[in-house]
Amino acid sequence: MSRPANRQWLLARRPQGLVSAEDFRLVETPAPVAGDGELLVRNLYLSVDPTQRGWMAGDTYLPAVKIGEVMRSFAVGEVTESRHPAFRAGQLVQGLFGWQEWAVARPGSSSAPTAIPPGVPVETAMSALGLTGITAYFGLLEVGRPKPGETVVVSGAAGATGSVAAQIARVAGCRVIGIAGGPEKCAYLTGELGLDGAIDYRGPDVAGALRTLCPKGVDVFFDNVGGPVLDVVLSQLALRGRIVLCGGISQYNDARPSPGPANLMSLIVKRGRMEGFIVLDSLSRAGEAVTALSGWMREGRIRDRVDVVEGFERAPEALLRLFQGRNLGKQLVKLAAPR
Amino acid sequence: MSRPANRQWLLARRPQGLVSAEDFRLVETPAPVAGDGELLVRNLYLSVDPTQRGWMAGDTYLPAVKIGEVMRSFAVGEVTESRHPAFRAGQLVQGLFGWQEWAVARPGSSSAPTAIPPGVPVETAMSALGLTGITAYFGLLEVGRPKPGETVVVSGAAGATGSVAAQIARVAGCRVIGIAGGPEKCAYLTGELGLDGAIDYRGPDVAGALRTLCPKGVDVFFDNVGGPVLDVVLSQLALRGRIVLCGGISQYNDARPSPGPANLMSLIVKRGRMEGFIVLDSLSRAGEAVTALSGWMREGRIRDRVDVVEGFERAPEALLRLFQGRNLGKQLVKLAAPR
Repeated sequence: MSRPANRQWLLARRPQGLVSAEDFRLVETPAPVAGDGELLVRNLYLSVDPTQRGWMAGDTYLPAVKIGEVMRSFAVGEVTESRHPAFRAGQLVQGLFGWQEWAVARPGSSSAPTAIPPGVPVETAMSALGLTGITAYFGLLEVGRPKPGETVVVSGAAGATGSVAAQIARVAGCRVIGIAGGPEKCAYLTGELGLDGAIDYRGPDVAGALRTLCPKGVDVFFDNVGGPVLDVVLSQLALRGRIVLCGGISQYNDARPSPGPANLMSLIVKRGRMEGFIVLDSLSRAGEAVTALSGWMREGRIRDRVDVVEGFERAPEALLRLFQGRNLGKQLVKLAAPR
Repeated sequence: MSRPANRQWLLARRPQGLVSAEDFRLVETPAPVAGDGELLVRNLYLSVDPTQRGWMAGDTYLPAVKIGEVMRSFAVGEVTESRHPAFRAGQLVQGLFGWQEWAVARPGSSSAPTAIPPGVPVETAMSALGLTGITAYFGLLEVGRPKPGETVVVSGAAGATGSVAAQIARVAGCRVIGIAGGPEKCAYLTGELGLDGAIDYRGPDVAGALRTLCPKGVDVFFDNVGGPVLDVVLSQLALRGRIVLCGGISQYNDARPSPGPANLMSLIVKRGRMEGFIVLDSLSRAGEAVTALSGWMREGRIRDRVDVVEGFERAPEALLRLFQGRNLGKQLVKLAAPR
């Protein structure tokens, strides 16, 4: 049997400023062959995440993707051949399979495949019940520690992690204000997601809007954005307010780091806490998050939204969409439907 | 009996940039009279603290000092007349008595006087065994939570709070690097205070010096300074590093807030925590800190240093010394010796 063709997006260069298609190179090679203890996986969906911009640029919490390597990415695929006893052909798995149509995955390695639970739609398994939801769950509840009745503000609230974090805060009994770009997203936040208020960060007076919606200040800020939005929230932090630094998408494409928030010292005045969070540290407890999130979804308290771009060749375009603020909910690239 | 004259420094205006003598006005009035439940106190020492610059400028964790009011200040004085059963004439007390020679203090109010324990020298009671030491104790141990063997960096390490925090970190079994301005202070840190290293923040390559002295990164940063020093330490934070924001003296005289640290996002990459701290929240547990600090002083593990300016009229000058980096240890103004 001849090996199928495997299209791959390789990292062509370190990005300068905003990511672009020229940062990647499309090649075609024969599909890889699974060795003993490995799986051959046909990718069905690619996960598109802001943190990938960091992986392209240099070493962070993971080593940088090397120039000429397949672009690193979470993905879901179907096992077409299993040479590992814990997996079987036909199973759906997720892992760091990269921007390619075929991947070899080795259980126990850094590309560690995990099975998608039966009955969970693939798109949900990649958003609210996947790393996105798990990020929101542990980041909000364990770092932010919201208490019932408190005011929680979420930036990037119409995005993948933000929309789940905002809804979890509602479940936790908080008043929740979402920050997003543009009237359409804001309407989505107060409409479909049922948040208590929304602020368009492109509006003329973000500080004034925040003061109106959070007259007692911000108890918990779940931040995906950084930059000026973080600065405004710092200036209106409540006593003992907590800031969960989950991401800083406004800054990922800066050629050099932008200045930080001028209002940082309000952390002293307000005895505030600002803490960074990366979901990879919590993966051993992912089951706890998925169980809770599944229950809330069944009860209709958490809604999932995905934004699907069709076609492997459009992966760079899908990544760019994140930084243009064009996605609503989790950005995915669909290569093929599950069988 | 005629009432003695009471010289007072009033706040004359909100400071513009660096504090100056023109921000204050010296007046002379008759000494106040203690009413029922009050004490008449003759001030002996004024405590000079960076946070006073904030009190002059506007509302922070305390309301701003009003224009025309006596400048707010911690002080130690002698009770000359007690009309409260818990105090007696001749006793030494400390409290928020202000920049004046005579004060009326009311137990239970915001100027709440507390007795200086017998046998403790006044200057020590205002530095290592006073609010300064209590700040260092709770800020370092409860916010920073250093573990034995970790690397602790302290900025403003030759100053009042910093020098005690650095020595407590040594007691806690840490490697301790102090940051201060100029070779004399750095020699004091590695000599008299026995720190493991010192960095002159005015030197040509602070980042390089920090990298050399902290090759595994910074586990705990006790920051009194803010600004560029904070930015450099952020860029070299160790995994799960903690930053105690105790002060930001480099920024207190800014006419408008300076930009914050460009490396703030390393809190995400390193899962770092940055937390503000104000000692007033811990006063109910002050005894615990004073007991521990007294013990360490007796054992010679913590040394106290005060920098005394003589003369009530020099209070504004003493405050300015802080922002010029001229003080070594706790800055005090001495009005008179205890009897």
